[in-house]
Amino acid sequence: MLFDRVAVIGVGLIGGSLALAARRAGLIGEVVGVGRGASNLADARALGMVDRTTSDLGEIGPVDLVVLAVPVRTTGEIARSLAASIEPGTVVTDVGSVKQWVVEECTEALPASCPFVGAHPIAGSERTGAAAACADLFEDSVCVVTPVDATPPPARDAIIELWRGVGARVHEMTPSDHDRALAWTSHLGHVLSYALAHALAGAGDVLPLAGPSLREITRMAGGSTPMWRDIFLSNDRAVLATIDEFSSSLGDLRAAIEGGDAAAVDALLDHALATRRRIVEDS
Amino acid sequence: MLFDRVAVIGVGLIGGSLALAARRAGLIGEVVGVGRGASNLADARALGMVDRTTSDLGEIGPVDLVVLAVPVRTTGEIARSLAASIEPGTVVTDVGSVKQWVVEECTEALPASCPFVGAHPIAGSERTGAAAACADLFEDSVCVVTPVDATPPPARDAIIELWRGVGARVHEMTPSDHDRALAWTSHLGHVLSYALAHALAGAGDVLPLAGPSLREITRMAGGSTPMWRDIFLSNDRAVLATIDEFSSSLGDLRAAIEGGDAAAVDALLDHALATRRRIVEDS
Repeated sequence: MLFDRVAVIGVGLIGGSLALAARRAGLIGEVVGVGRGASNLADARALGMVDRTTSDLGEIGPVDLVVLAVPVRTTGEIARSLAASIEPGTVVTDVGSVKQWVVEECTEALPASCPFVGAHPIAGSERTGAAAACADLFEDSVCVVTPVDATPPPARDAIIELWRGVGARVHEMTPSDHDRALAWTSHLGHVLSYALAHALAGAGDVLPLAGPSLREITRMAGGSTPMWRDIFLSNDRAVLATIDEFSSSLGDLRAAIEGGDAAAVDALLDHALATRRRIVEDS
Repeated sequence: MLFDRVAVIGVGLIGGSLALAARRAGLIGEVVGVGRGASNLADARALGMVDRTTSDLGEIGPVDLVVLAVPVRTTGEIARSLAASIEPGTVVTDVGSVKQWVVEECTEALPASCPFVGAHPIAGSERTGAAAACADLFEDSVCVVTPVDATPPPARDAIIELWRGVGARVHEMTPSDHDRALAWTSHLGHVLSYALAHALAGAGDVLPLAGPSLREITRMAGGSTPMWRDIFLSNDRAVLATIDEFSSSLGDLRAAIEGGDAAAVDALLDHALATRRRIVEDS
C-alpha cells in the first residue's frame, strides 16, 4: 500500500475514478471525499469510492495524501486553506491540465514539510460527476508527472507508482514542457473549436446544412466554461504562442488560396496529411 | 421511371451509391459507368451498380441523364468533352461540394439544349471507390439542388425527384448561397484542420501526449489533397471570407486571454457553447 489515508478534494470523474482504481489495485486505504455538492458526495459514498465525506477542508483529519481534483485556478486557494491544518509529511498532488501555474501556487502555499507533486492524467470523457467515474478510466492512458528540483524523491516515486498502478503510462516532464506540449495537443484545439462556434453565430441560417464534420470540429466548444477559462488563463503564455503559430499557418494556406496557387495548396495539404498520419500512429 | 438511360462519370463512393440507390428505387434504367481505373470499373460491374463501363466519353451512347461525380475542377473539362457527342435533351447534373463555379463552367460548355442542374448531396465517408458505395448512403441526408433562372422546370423537377427518391431531404438554393453556407459548415472546418496539422509539424515532439481531441480535430486533414484543393480554389471567395471572420473571432478570444479578462473569456465561451448546442439540435 502506497498511502494509508487519502483525501480526494473534488470527487468528480477524475478524482472519483482515481479513488476507485487505486482502491481496486490495493494502493490506498481509507478515503475521505471533499466537495460542496451533497448529492454528488452521496453518490461517491454509495458507489464505494470514498469511506466518508465532508464539505469542510478543516474536517479532513490526518491523511498521507491529498489529491486536488478541482478546476485549475482553485487549486492555489485550496492549498492555502489546507496549509493551516495539514500534517507535516503529507504529500499533495493534483490532476489539472496546466502544471507550471499550479506547481508554483501550491508549492508556495503549502508548508515546506508537505511536498507538492503535480500530475496530469490525460483521460476523461464528456461526462462529469462521481456517477461518471469508473475504475478503468486510466488503463492505457498517459499521465504526465511534473516533479521539480526541490521535490523529495520518495514523494515523486510514490505519485509515479500510484499512476502506474492504475494503468497509466507515466511521462515525467518539467511543468513548463508539459504546458507547452499540452497547449499544442489540447488547449489550441479547444481555442479553435470555441472560436469557430463563436464565429458561426454570425453566419446566418447555415446550420441546417451542417454535416458530421461540423459537429465533430465544434464538439470541444461543448465543454465546461469555468474549466476551460481556467486552463486558458493559467496557461496563457503557451496558449498565446500556439495561437500565433497557428495563425501563421492559416495565413500561409489563405495566401495560397487567394493566389490561386494549386501547387502551394497541394504542398501544404500534403504536409498536413503527413502530420495527420503521424498523429494517428503515435497517439 | 425518371431516366431510362444514365451515364455516371466517376463510379466512386457518391456516383456508385447514387446508381445503386436509384436503381433500387426504380428511378433509373440502364446505367453506363465511365472512369479511368479498370479495376474500379470491374468492381462497379460486379456489384451491380452499372450494366456496362467504358473509359472513353465518346462511347457513352445516347442517354437521358449524365451524372458528373468527379473532383470539382474537372467537371468543366468533362462537360466540354461531352459537348461534341451529347444528344439534345440530355440532362446533366453533378454532385460536387462547390456550385457556382461548376454551374457556370458546365452551363457554358454544354449545348443550350442540354440543361445543367447542379446538386450536392451532403453525405459521404472516409472511404472511396465503387466498393465503398452503398444503396442507403443518402437516407436521411441533405441534398442541395441549385437550379438557376434559365433551368427548364422539368429538368429541375426530375433532379429533385431523383434525390428525394433515394431518401435525401432536398434544399433548393442559389449556387452562391450554397457556396457561402458550405464554406461555413464544411470548407472552413477543413481549412482549420489542415492549418492545425501543418502548424503541428513544427511543434517538436509533442504527439505522444495527444489525446482523442487532437485526433478528432485533425481528422479532416486526412482527406484527399486533389479533392480539397479543388474545393478551396473553386470556392475561394466564400472560403476566404469565412477564414477572415474566423480570424476575427480567434483574435477576440486571444485578446481576452492576453488581457487575463476572465469575464470576457467566459462570455465568449458561453456564446460559443450556445451555438454548439444549436449545431447538435439543428443538424
